[in-house]
Amino acid sequence: MIIILKAGVAEADAKQLLEKIEGLGLKPLYMPGVERTVLGAIGDERILASLHLDSDPRVDELKPILSSYKLVSRELNPIDSHVMLGNHAVGGERFTVIAGPCGVESKEQLFSVADMIKQQGEAVALRGGAFKPRTSPYSFQGLGEEGLKLLQQAKQRTGLPIVSEVIDANDVELMAQYVDCFQIGTRNMQNYRLLEAVGKQQIPVLLKRGMSATIEELLLAAEYIVNSGNPNVILCERGIRTFETATRNTLDLNAVAYLKQKTHLPVLVDPSHGTGVRELIAPLSYAAAAVGADGIIVESHLNPCEALSDGHQALDAEQYAALLDGLRPFVHAAGKLL
Amino acid sequence: MIIILKAGVAEADAKQLLEKIEGLGLKPLYMPGVERTVLGAIGDERILASLHLDSDPRVDELKPILSSYKLVSRELNPIDSHVMLGNHAVGGERFTVIAGPCGVESKEQLFSVADMIKQQGEAVALRGGAFKPRTSPYSFQGLGEEGLKLLQQAKQRTGLPIVSEVIDANDVELMAQYVDCFQIGTRNMQNYRLLEAVGKQQIPVLLKRGMSATIEELLLAAEYIVNSGNPNVILCERGIRTFETATRNTLDLNAVAYLKQKTHLPVLVDPSHGTGVRELIAPLSYAAAAVGADGIIVESHLNPCEALSDGHQALDAEQYAALLDGLRPFVHAAGKLL
Amino acid sequence: MIIILKAGVAEADAKQLLEKIEGLGLKPLYMPGVERTVLGAIGDERILASLHLDSDPRVDELKPILSSYKLVSRELNPIDSHVMLGNHAVGGERFTVIAGPCGVESKEQLFSVADMIKQQGEAVALRGGAFKPRTSPYSFQGLGEEGLKLLQQAKQRTGLPIVSEVIDANDVELMAQYVDCFQIGTRNMQNYRLLEAVGKQQIPVLLKRGMSATIEELLLAAEYIVNSGNPNVILCERGIRTFETATRNTLDLNAVAYLKQKTHLPVLVDPSHGTGVRELIAPLSYAAAAVGADGIIVESHLNPCEALSDGHQALDAEQYAALLDGLRPFVHAAGKLL
Amino acid sequence: MIIILKAGVAEADAKQLLEKIEGLGLKPLYMPGVERTVLGAIGDERILASLHLDSDPRVDELKPILSSYKLVSRELNPIDSHVMLGNHAVGGERFTVIAGPCGVESKEQLFSVADMIKQQGEAVALRGGAFKPRTSPYSFQGLGEEGLKLLQQAKQRTGLPIVSEVIDANDVELMAQYVDCFQIGTRNMQNYRLLEAVGKQQIPVLLKRGMSATIEELLLAAEYIVNSGNPNVILCERGIRTFETATRNTLDLNAVAYLKQKTHLPVLVDPSHGTGVRELIAPLSYAAAAVGADGIIVESHLNPCEALSDGHQALDAEQYAALLDGLRPFVHAAGKLL
Repeated sequence: MIIILKAGVAEADAKQLLEKIEGLGLKPLYMPGVERTVLGAIGDERILASLHLDSDPRVDELKPILSSYKLVSRELNPIDSHVMLGNHAVGGERFTVIAGPCGVESKEQLFSVADMIKQQGEAVALRGGAFKPRTSPYSFQGLGEEGLKLLQQAKQRTGLPIVSEVIDANDVELMAQYVDCFQIGTRNMQNYRLLEAVGKQQIPVLLKRGMSATIEELLLAAEYIVNSGNPNVILCERGIRTFETATRNTLDLNAVAYLKQKTHLPVLVDPSHGTGVRELIAPLSYAAAAVGADGIIVESHLNPCEALSDGHQALDAEQYAALLDGLRPFVHAAGKLL
Repeated sequence: MIIILKAGVAEADAKQLLEKIEGLGLKPLYMPGVERTVLGAIGDERILASLHLDSDPRVDELKPILSSYKLVSRELNPIDSHVMLGNHAVGGERFTVIAGPCGVESKEQLFSVADMIKQQGEAVALRGGAFKPRTSPYSFQGLGEEGLKLLQQAKQRTGLPIVSEVIDANDVELMAQYVDCFQIGTRNMQNYRLLEAVGKQQIPVLLKRGMSATIEELLLAAEYIVNSGNPNVILCERGIRTFETATRNTLDLNAVAYLKQKTHLPVLVDPSHGTGVRELIAPLSYAAAAVGADGIIVESHLNPCEALSDGHQALDAEQYAALLDGLRPFVHAAGKLL
Repeated sequence: MIIILKAGVAEADAKQLLEKIEGLGLKPLYMPGVERTVLGAIGDERILASLHLDSDPRVDELKPILSSYKLVSRELNPIDSHVMLGNHAVGGERFTVIAGPCGVESKEQLFSVADMIKQQGEAVALRGGAFKPRTSPYSFQGLGEEGLKLLQQAKQRTGLPIVSEVIDANDVELMAQYVDCFQIGTRNMQNYRLLEAVGKQQIPVLLKRGMSATIEELLLAAEYIVNSGNPNVILCERGIRTFETATRNTLDLNAVAYLKQKTHLPVLVDPSHGTGVRELIAPLSYAAAAVGADGIIVESHLNPCEALSDGHQALDAEQYAALLDGLRPFVHAAGKLL
Repeated sequence: MIIILKAGVAEADAKQLLEKIEGLGLKPLYMPGVERTVLGAIGDERILASLHLDSDPRVDELKPILSSYKLVSRELNPIDSHVMLGNHAVGGERFTVIAGPCGVESKEQLFSVADMIKQQGEAVALRGGAFKPRTSPYSFQGLGEEGLKLLQQAKQRTGLPIVSEVIDANDVELMAQYVDCFQIGTRNMQNYRLLEAVGKQQIPVLLKRGMSATIEELLLAAEYIVNSGNPNVILCERGIRTFETATRNTLDLNAVAYLKQKTHLPVLVDPSHGTGVRELIAPLSYAAAAVGADGIIVESHLNPCEALSDGHQALDAEQYAALLDGLRPFVHAAGKLL
């Protein structure tokens, strides 16, 4: 930890801080400068929390040297983690495709999409929301447990494992009976109770980046889950909120490349929410493969015009088939299989 | 609702859409233009949801005419709502001051702050977190129910009603036994289960704006609570996330003035989180009073250097007293009492 | 144009506005609603500017139907434009690579980089700044005309056309003697005098997106140049400013895909500034090719550690060669040549 | 300067860097840590630029200790600067009000506004643009020198000094004959040629913050002007670009309070552009006074509905009078005169 003192702090004050640092078993460093003094503390920075340096009026700024996440860091775990969805290893050499409708609306809707996705042959899991977090209280809120049962039947029908969003810690046990992978949505990335609850399961968790979360905050949210006991975390970039309004979100592919360097966890991309525009899903999927993502999760619907949520960003059967065809050469160029 | 069709959509398609609109009992309008055609639908726009126009490939853009919130809108309810905290009416002629530590850390810490706040005489409620949402799993997470019991004792001691953050729908009933006002924090503004759960109580709710939530999303989150049955909602601007890094957040006082025009709900400002810098709390509190806010909620601590969370933005006793003194003339200039 | 009136505007007022609209030769539309009235004006919306509707206190909101750019729009010009850099057609079937140092520092530095780039064989132009816009007045400001002369010599030496930044309208004529393509930097995207000045030349212009400019503002800036007489505009996405601080900017590849649909102008990507991190340049270059960009512009330097500006994002000879090798399969997957 | 090395950098490399630091006359510091090594360099950090540490592949991050601006910093110059507009000292005890139309449109329009402003009695200068930077090439671009002549006549008529925007370095000498204060607009805050050109004059400069410029970048832009020889700089917060779309910009009053602590230069607020909504101008003006701004600059127009630019944010005579009346108690509460 580097500790920059305010201008004018007395030498005696600096020495007192150094003694406290030494008292905690860290190696102190004293750097008196022309305009201000800088202190250093070498060792495990987390011990320093007990000094409350960030509240000390003599301290101008703290500059941590180590990242605040550990378990998910590539520094400690240089080898790529694989998270199993059925027989498929997310993070492995085969590019992951997860597809399905935004929300489960009816048996007919779900089965028809599931059959189509199964038939196209590349998807390794079926996504679909039974509990929908919606900005307006007047929008479709999902079918609840009935939706989960339909998802279970769709799995029996197609063999595809199920990915579905969990929106409350209280639902985790119920959902654990039905789904093969929890999805934590963008609005819940910092719902710590929920993170801890899925952390107590061994079912994989697809953790979406908060729409205004920094990359470090995403990694810390993943750290919550792993620290609670569940190492099966898949990260997902789904677009961040910026000043640009032409697209619903700004897909941050910088973040994908950066994450692949900093963490051993697999990283997927959601081009449906990441753009919010049907016509942009294919090119951004290709870009996701090129930038090094481990896969994509896309929304599809046999009849997007009738979708109860987010139909404007869902692909119909033809568009979905075209996406897979267009995607293949980019996945191969990236040295992965599809 | 204004419906802008894509360039090149055939007249027959437009007519088909108009028939559907008419079929729902709305008045259709047809505006064939030089480059593209525009349709209109006059009447209750929410009925249109069943047409899924936003997913229709013929539709380029939908432009709603009415706001999507109703219950919290000033158009329907032009008179300012008052929300009672003990005997004090938030939103009334007396400027609201809520103060207390970020987190409840111990009986000694809480009581000493509470006594100081009581003694200063202007605060109408005591704030303090028993459940703390923290970015890192390794940070102090709050005392839980023990913290709630301490808050209850502090209330008995000082007579000040208690405001405390609820972070999970499951905790609502427990907390309802201890607190006089739920606080929904910035990370939970779109935790809809939580919004519905506090909506089933009659205890006031202080709803903080999400750090990247638009004003409309804040109003829709409030609509969830009111729509669930609880009209006692207090809004709180607490800073938004922008590119600026000199301050922790950017306090959006535009939003306060805008909210006062659009909604009848009271609006508070949190200058502690809104700036994240102790030295900026006083001037931004003055600005909050001037811009028309109904009050402020500030963090204070007898010994900020020892605070287990956010000490860098807490005011000590002297600073808190100075804040109140400095604030008074601005509250009076705004035509309110303090 | 759709004109939404404020709630409570009288019918007589609405009729008066409709008469004005009709008086300008546009077709007026009247849509009285339950809560508010909406007007329409069908025809060339630009004529409406003379009514100053956006300042009218009776008007709540204006919703233009047509985009405000014309000359650069794909609607009017569906065929991809090609802009010539020497013999190379930017926007054609061959992927464009432009490389070179951030700033021209000395004859030795420039020639060695230029020779290396020439030898690698894929670049079609050499970039290098003679006039450097720098955030701090104490940073290296470029060699000025001496730098331009060195660039001219580098061109004679290698045959590579020169791309160099122009930062002032007054310099346009001088630079026109030395360069084959003007670059307009991110801070000057809305320097309208400069846009008009390069618009009076026929030399190609590489127009970088402002770091907080919307896509529409970028297209309007391009419209300035084309409207002034110069159709040879190349757009360049170089990252936008967001809340994320792990990377210097957030490269917005959504914008590239979106631009390719909206405009006939070629679109390049600058992964050096777009990430600001050397290790991220290669993956984001691959993503740029995959998303449909017409090329990239990258910074390289034989000895990045000695660069006078932006060395942290420059590639050395080995990294540059590796980038080209890694890029090729993605360009081929995109159906282009390299 | 703190220099954090990448994990795994050899001791020999670290020693070599330390020798270079020492060779420049700075005091080197060596802090070998558990996971990575940190170096320090005590002394004038600007000397270190010659080492190009930010490009060094062994360096992970550089953390400067000193701010990069000097001349405008309060650390060197603790006393508030006053900048004279006619007889009025901006930054002194009297709150500054500058008013006028967005653009000069005609003699009649300008004189009528100027007369009204003069009559109201509080404004110390008249603003009005002769050269207008406009996003679209099809919008009104200003009257040019004819506009300057009209401004000069308005000054003769009312005695009010003139503030007008300069958009190109080439215009500085011409405008110097007509205006009493240059305005640098938001799009030109980093037009360094322009900053240097006004820096060679002694006429005051009102420097507006770029819409996505950090506070530090604003101070560095001011440093350019002062460093070129002109100490008469007035800063102006005018709203930043964020995700929020309800208001045109987000007025950043945090920045005003922060600037007042960091710099001795006067700071004004532009609530017209800062909100873009007529109804929000008054409350945000009051907030500006409360937060410690030295004054405001507002747009007014006798007939906002006819304004050729930005009429939606202009105040008419009655609204302007009401603003001044409403503002007065807040200015007095802030201990200033109006």
